[in-house]
Amino acid sequence: MSETRTLANFIVNTRSSEIPDDVRHEGKRALLNIVGCALGGATHPAVDAAIRALVSVFGAPTAIVLGRAERMDPLHASLMNGLSSHVLDYDDTMPKNYGHHSSPVASALLAYASVNRVSGRDLLDAFIIGFETSARVANAVYPAHYDVGWHMTGTAGVFGAAAAVGRVAGLNEQPMVWALGLAATQAAGLREMFGSMAKSFHPGRSAQNGYASVLLAREGFTSGERSLEGPRGFAAVQAASYDLSKITHTLGVDYQLRDNTYKPFPCGIVIHPTIDGCIQLHDEHGLRADSIAAVRLRVAPLVLDLCNQKDITKGLQGKFSVYHGAAIGLVRGRGGLAEFTDDAVNDPAIRRVREATTATADPSITEDQSSIDVQLTDGRVLTRFVEASLGNLRRPLTDQQLEAKCREQALLVLSSAEAERMIGLCWNVDELGDASELVAATVPAVARSL
Amino acid sequence: MSETRTLANFIVNTRSSEIPDDVRHEGKRALLNIVGCALGGATHPAVDAAIRALVSVFGAPTAIVLGRAERMDPLHASLMNGLSSHVLDYDDTMPKNYGHHSSPVASALLAYASVNRVSGRDLLDAFIIGFETSARVANAVYPAHYDVGWHMTGTAGVFGAAAAVGRVAGLNEQPMVWALGLAATQAAGLREMFGSMAKSFHPGRSAQNGYASVLLAREGFTSGERSLEGPRGFAAVQAASYDLSKITHTLGVDYQLRDNTYKPFPCGIVIHPTIDGCIQLHDEHGLRADSIAAVRLRVAPLVLDLCNQKDITKGLQGKFSVYHGAAIGLVRGRGGLAEFTDDAVNDPAIRRVREATTATADPSITEDQSSIDVQLTDGRVLTRFVEASLGNLRRPLTDQQLEAKCREQALLVLSSAEAERMIGLCWNVDELGDASELVAATVPAVARSL
Repeated sequence: MSETRTLANFIVNTRSSEIPDDVRHEGKRALLNIVGCALGGATHPAVDAAIRALVSVFGAPTAIVLGRAERMDPLHASLMNGLSSHVLDYDDTMPKNYGHHSSPVASALLAYASVNRVSGRDLLDAFIIGFETSARVANAVYPAHYDVGWHMTGTAGVFGAAAAVGRVAGLNEQPMVWALGLAATQAAGLREMFGSMAKSFHPGRSAQNGYASVLLAREGFTSGERSLEGPRGFAAVQAASYDLSKITHTLGVDYQLRDNTYKPFPCGIVIHPTIDGCIQLHDEHGLRADSIAAVRLRVAPLVLDLCNQKDITKGLQGKFSVYHGAAIGLVRGRGGLAEFTDDAVNDPAIRRVREATTATADPSITEDQSSIDVQLTDGRVLTRFVEASLGNLRRPLTDQQLEAKCREQALLVLSSAEAERMIGLCWNVDELGDASELVAATVPAVARSL
Repeated sequence: MSETRTLANFIVNTRSSEIPDDVRHEGKRALLNIVGCALGGATHPAVDAAIRALVSVFGAPTAIVLGRAERMDPLHASLMNGLSSHVLDYDDTMPKNYGHHSSPVASALLAYASVNRVSGRDLLDAFIIGFETSARVANAVYPAHYDVGWHMTGTAGVFGAAAAVGRVAGLNEQPMVWALGLAATQAAGLREMFGSMAKSFHPGRSAQNGYASVLLAREGFTSGERSLEGPRGFAAVQAASYDLSKITHTLGVDYQLRDNTYKPFPCGIVIHPTIDGCIQLHDEHGLRADSIAAVRLRVAPLVLDLCNQKDITKGLQGKFSVYHGAAIGLVRGRGGLAEFTDDAVNDPAIRRVREATTATADPSITEDQSSIDVQLTDGRVLTRFVEASLGNLRRPLTDQQLEAKCREQALLVLSSAEAERMIGLCWNVDELGDASELVAATVPAVARSL
């Protein structure tokens, strides 16, 4: 059986009971995280611009957009969900292929579930299977595909979105093969877009296009049937080298969600170890800004290649400053959204510590590590060597940490009571009779009444 | 100035008066041809399936679909126009890069013009500039891009659609740069889809996505600004070798429409010389089926590689049978849509001549040539050597031939009077105060009243 057909068969025929419990729990964690990210980004100017641009072509206002009052057709809702959940660069990352697979998959699936009755258990199964599809397609073409300049989140994501929606829509194997083909022939997204709104357009469009592929295939709109493995198919065309066995080998046994990670801080990942270690020192020693005399960092050389800005005034610059990362950790004991605003970058206490920080590139330090010396005004020197940064596979965020990350973002649009309810619905998603309850819970009552 | 910005500047700043008259006339020919093809394909099952699949997400029914009664939002109308105008493989071809550039460009532009007031002259200018954009992007990455398996009509077409719509929407240079970037990051379409409905999905989706790129860019949705030439941009990512000077060299002087060709027969292009020569013999000698005893062809070897079927029963098979091509030319003196139906393939007179035809591969014959001997029942032998097939750049279809091709397809959905009126509006498009008059003229009154 071809890889495309094997994958289609897995997508539509895997029984819920075959998905292991630990994978199911990881699915809930990923769902909680991506819903939180969507709320964090829901009011971003990119989402506002997209809604202004496309409102004239929206279909009937049946679907719910995560964290927004506007209703629209489910394809455009998928697009908006993808924009909001990726635009802060705060969503999940799969180190194995650098894909952010939850965004395209959940964005389409939650839009679908807002207009079709889907049980919570079916939704969670479909999310897990959509993630698996996106991640395995990415594995098959990584690294050649990524290295040449494709944005995996867009190119693999469209397969994942088609898989998730195809599953809850109840496609049979043959239309699922066509849906994968229609996804393949829309696989796009260039890394040249990084630094612009178009980066977050990739998971958004993938969600929208994967969803549309299912609608088309269901009505007998045909595609090529060897879209992954054919001589002019996705792998051959979009990767100089590839290994399609990564799509089928141990499929249904080794679940890719087990290798997913969640960003604890919304900034360049190479400064995460420094922020992490500085937060540890802050918490253990009750540090205050005026007790800090100087900070000396030893970091991997790549950190200074990418994040060597000290004289900064903008929140966006703070995302790529290891000095700012050290300062927020030591002064505030936090590295959340509030620490990467213009206000935070210009906070006098943070600025003073940032300016008192020096960093040395040390080739013996890996990108997961950081060596931190903090000289206090009383003469003591605190030291910390971070061996593995919070959030990586060796030190995954705990459920409580994921929940706190989600809460912080949810509170940007929801009341405290609404945020807690939504978080509870994420953890208990598989018990919901109708998963639209979760989607609806992302929209604040004040917006729903508009 | 970067290639992307140079192109954006050309798109938005070229004055109508700078477009040479011969190019303007060729633009009308291409427009007439593609509108005719859209009418020919308007009732194809692929269009029906797409409408059934997506009707639930259509926006307000403001836009007109070529040759159809249904109204929908202009993005979905762009998609349907792209499907119908390409699905019969009867649209134009640019031999220089094998792109079919009119379909994505006109599909978006005519949908736009059905909901926004655009003068006929502005529409024709935008069509010419959109075609130019698509063709030059294709030239820059041909042949590496095509050879690896990209369908140029999709990948380059999205740039052309964005250019055409961006021009009539009045974008300034900066948003046009973003629109090109959003087009680039959606450039897709795999040749693996050939033989399925998804092939015609490529120009459809490109039309829709190029149009959407303009709507987004106009509202400040940003993209990377070096989408063509950047190190992770379209050319570097999607072609192993490329020459970006083909985008900018003689831009505004050498127009690509001058190198466009129009298929005279809706079938594999390698059997065109044989059909052409047989029609000539039919017309010159008043041939009838019962006067033909045997037919001997000498053709390029590729013809027998691709089109060596003789024992056939389906219209689709006839499109790839050089024997059928000879028979329809000799018996009917025509090679139109009616000659590639199941009925035509099973017509006893055509079948008899087809079975009386033999073909020999001859390496001295080029793919533009065919050598034809027809032995008559009265003992005479007629011979014809076709040097250059009708429709190629050395023997372009005349205006009258293009008009006849358009008429034949238009009559599938329009009354005779409606078809003549529509053809007249195409030839006089630049005199229309509102180009929506042309778009509306593609819909039969009987459908408009539904």
